Amino acid sequence: MPEARTITEAAPLIRRGDITPTDLLDQCLARIDQYEAKVRAWVHIDREGAFEQADRLTAELKAGQNRGPLHGIPVGVKDIIDVFDMPTGCGSKLWANSYARRDATCVARLRQAGAIILGKTVTTAYASFDPPITRNPWNLECTPGGSSSGSAAAVACGMCFGALATQTGGSITRPASYCGVYSLKPTYGRVSVDGVLPLAPSLDHVGVMANCVRDLAVVFQVIAGPDERLGFSVKGHYPVQDMEAALARAEEQDFGPDLSVLGGLFHDLLGPEIRPHYSELIDRINSRVTLLERTATPAQFSDVLHMHRVVMAVQAAGYHGDRLRRHPDDYPPNVRALIEEGLRHPAVVYDAALAAEEDINDQLTRMLNGVRFFLTPATTTAAPDPSTTGDPAFNSPWSFTGHPTVSLPYTYTSDGMPLAVQLVGSPMCEDDLFAAASWLQRVIGFEPRPLPL
Amino acid sequence: MPEARTITEAAPLIRRGDITPTDLLDQCLARIDQYEAKVRAWVHIDREGAFEQADRLTAELKAGQNRGPLHGIPVGVKDIIDVFDMPTGCGSKLWANSYARRDATCVARLRQAGAIILGKTVTTAYASFDPPITRNPWNLECTPGGSSSGSAAAVACGMCFGALATQTGGSITRPASYCGVYSLKPTYGRVSVDGVLPLAPSLDHVGVMANCVRDLAVVFQVIAGPDERLGFSVKGHYPVQDMEAALARAEEQDFGPDLSVLGGLFHDLLGPEIRPHYSELIDRINSRVTLLERTATPAQFSDVLHMHRVVMAVQAAGYHGDRLRRHPDDYPPNVRALIEEGLRHPAVVYDAALAAEEDINDQLTRMLNGVRFFLTPATTTAAPDPSTTGDPAFNSPWSFTGHPTVSLPYTYTSDGMPLAVQLVGSPMCEDDLFAAASWLQRVIGFEPRPLPL
Repeated sequence: MPEARTITEAAPLIRRGDITPTDLLDQCLARIDQYEAKVRAWVHIDREGAFEQADRLTAELKAGQNRGPLHGIPVGVKDIIDVFDMPTGCGSKLWANSYARRDATCVARLRQAGAIILGKTVTTAYASFDPPITRNPWNLECTPGGSSSGSAAAVACGMCFGALATQTGGSITRPASYCGVYSLKPTYGRVSVDGVLPLAPSLDHVGVMANCVRDLAVVFQVIAGPDERLGFSVKGHYPVQDMEAALARAEEQDFGPDLSVLGGLFHDLLGPEIRPHYSELIDRINSRVTLLERTATPAQFSDVLHMHRVVMAVQAAGYHGDRLRRHPDDYPPNVRALIEEGLRHPAVVYDAALAAEEDINDQLTRMLNGVRFFLTPATTTAAPDPSTTGDPAFNSPWSFTGHPTVSLPYTYTSDGMPLAVQLVGSPMCEDDLFAAASWLQRVIGFEPRPLPL
Repeated sequence: MPEARTITEAAPLIRRGDITPTDLLDQCLARIDQYEAKVRAWVHIDREGAFEQADRLTAELKAGQNRGPLHGIPVGVKDIIDVFDMPTGCGSKLWANSYARRDATCVARLRQAGAIILGKTVTTAYASFDPPITRNPWNLECTPGGSSSGSAAAVACGMCFGALATQTGGSITRPASYCGVYSLKPTYGRVSVDGVLPLAPSLDHVGVMANCVRDLAVVFQVIAGPDERLGFSVKGHYPVQDMEAALARAEEQDFGPDLSVLGGLFHDLLGPEIRPHYSELIDRINSRVTLLERTATPAQFSDVLHMHRVVMAVQAAGYHGDRLRRHPDDYPPNVRALIEEGLRHPAVVYDAALAAEEDINDQLTRMLNGVRFFLTPATTTAAPDPSTTGDPAFNSPWSFTGHPTVSLPYTYTSDGMPLAVQLVGSPMCEDDLFAAASWLQRVIGFEPRPLPL
C-alpha cells in the first residue's frame, strides 16, 4: 500500500481509491503507537471515534462522494480548541475534564470538509509558555517549543497529516520550526477564534501546521473566512481568495517574489551558531533572485517585543486575573508571572502599546508596498533544552501586527535539529504569501530526514 | 434588618443602604442551609465567589455606584447555561466536571447589571424530562417539575431572588407553576441562547423565574435583545421596549386587558380536580373585565402537541444522536426515547411539522389582533409525584409557536399545592404582556404561604 507523507500526496490516492481513509488512519495510529510514549504529543486520542469517522468517509467515497482534498485526512487539534464531546483541557488541571458541547468553528469546518478529528494535542498551560510534557521528536532532550507543542510534535512524527495550532506570541511558528514542520500563522482575524480559549484577544491567531506549503494552503482554505458566530472580527469578513489558483500561478512561472531580508532585531538576536546556516540559505536564494539584503526594521520596531508583552500581559490578566487569585495552584510560574505583570500595568502603558501597534502597522504597510515579502529566520536558535519553550522574539512581532507568516524548514544543524525560515506577507494576502512560500520551498529543496527515534 | 422577598422589594433597600448585597446573600445562604438538604435545588453553589461579588458590589454602593435594580441581587442559573469557571453539567454524568471558559451572554448581562451569580441549579438530563433529584418544596413527595427543576425550587425557597431557566417544551412554566413562583418564557429568539446547551434549537428559549411579575420584567430587561455572538437569531434584533414604562402605564390606569380564555386542549386536558379553582378564578376576573370565554383554538391546534414532539425529537436527535450511540449510559430512558424517536422520523414528517408551525402562527396572529391575550391554566394538574416531571401540554404549544408567556400562581389546592395561570401575548410584545400580567397579578391578589418544610 502506498504511504503518503502529506495531504497533497494522500488526496489523489484517496480520490483514486488506492488507499482509504481507514488506511490513512491506520498509518497515523501506527505512528502514535510507535512514538507517543516518548514524545507525548496528545492529551486525548479518540481512536474509536476516528474509526467511525473513517468508516463513514470511506463509505461516502464508495458512494462516489468526495468532499475535497481533506476527505479522510486525520488531523490533530490543539487542546485549547473545542471539539464536540472531547475534553478541552487548556493545559489546566481543574479544567482537564471539561467536555465541549460543540465544535469550534475551525473544527466544524475541517469536519465538514471531510477531515478526521483524531484527538487533542498538548498545549502549555493556557497557551502560555510553561514547559509542557511533550518532547521534541528530533531529540527527546529538547523542547518541541510551545505553546502548540503537541501539534508540532504530532505532525513531525506523522501521527497526523496536519494540526490546528494557535499563536499569541510565537506559539505556531516556533514549535513548528523546532520540530521541522511547516506552519501558517494567518492574518489576524482571518480564522475564527470561536470555541478557542483566549489568551490575549487582540493577539490570538488560529493557524495550521503540516508537512508542506500546499498542505497549509489546503487547510487554510477550509478554515478561513467570516464566522457569523463572531461579531468582533471585522477583518474576518474579507473574502478569502482561491489558494489553489494562487499556487498554480506560482508553479507555472518561475517567479521570484520581491523578498527583503529583514534586519534589526531579526539580525541582532539570531544565535551565532545558526548564522552560517542562514547566510548559506540567503546565498542560495540570491542565486535565484536578488534579495534586498538586511532591510532595516521601522524605527518603531525597537520596542516591539516590549509592547507585545505589555498587550499580552494586560489582556491575559483581564481574562485570568480573578481566576488566578481563586485558583493559584492551577497556574504554573510563567503564566502566573505574565498575569501578575498584566495586573500591575498602568492603563497609560497599555494604551501606549496599543497606539504603537497602529504606528508599526502603518510603517510596515508602506514597506511591504515596495518589497511584498520579508524573510527572517523563524527562530533565534534551534530547539533548546526542555526547561523552556524557547524564544518567540522573531514571531511575536507578527502576532502584534497581525501580518500573515509562513515558516518552512530549510536545513538541519550538525546536531540534527531542524531550522526554519519565516516569510511575512501583507495582511489578507495569504494567496500571495502561499505562492511565494511555494516558490521558496522549491528553491530550498528541503529533504526531511527520518526521525532518529 | 428588613427582609426582602422580591427584587422589587430589595432594590430600594439596597439603594437606600438599609441592607447591603452581603446581607441579601446571607439571607439566601441561610435559606440554602435550611432547605437544600431536603430540596436539592443546586448542582454547584459558589459561596466564596458569591461573597467576593457581594463585597465588590457593596463597595461600589459605598462609592456611590449603583448598577440598577439588580445590583447585589443573588440569582441562580440553570445548569445548562455557562457561567465562567463553574461546571456546566447539563444533567450529564460524563460532562459533570465541564468548566465553562466564559459566561453565556445572558449570564454576562446579569453580571454586568450587578447580579450575584450564586451557582448552578439542577436540570434534568440534557434539559429533557427524566425525573431529577430535586423535590418540590411544597411537598417533598411531589416533583418540582422539569426541566428547570432547581431554578423553580430555589426561587420558591428564597434561596435566590430570581433564576435563569430554559424551555423547549414546558420547562419554564411547568416547574414555576408547580413550585408557586412566577415565570416568563419570552418570545422565541428574544433572549440569546449563546452558551446554552441546545435541545431543539428552533424551540429553545431562555427565560426567568422570580417572585412577582415586576421582578420578571426587571430581569428580562437586562437579558433581552440582540446578541452579536449569534448570527442565526434575526428575531433577536427587534429592539427591546422599556418594561418599567409599560408597567407604570399599567399601574396608572385600572385597565382591563382584552383577555380570551382559550378552550380546545386547554379545556379538554385540564385535570378535573383543578377545574373548580380555575373556574373560580375566571369568575373573579369576570367581575373586573368581561372575558371572551373559551375561545376555540385554531383548527391547526388539534395536532400541535404531536407536531411539537416531532420537531423536538428530530432536532434533539440531530444534536445527540451520535453521542447517544457512543455513550448510551449517559442517557436516561426518557431523553433516550426522544432521541431514538427523532432518529426514526422520515424527513417528510418533520417537514410537515415545520410547515404546521407557520400555519398555526399565522392563525394565532390573526386571533391576537382581536383579543390581545390568551388566558389558560399553566399546567394540567398540580405537581404530581416525582416519578415524572409532569405534563407540558399547556406549555409546549407556545414553545412551538414562540409566543411569549407569563405564568402567575393564583391559589393552592386543598393539599396545599400551588396552581398557576398562563397569559400568552403577541410575539415581541413583552412590554404589553408584562402590563397585562401586572394587572392580572393585582386582580388575583395571590398571597404566598410560608413553606411547609
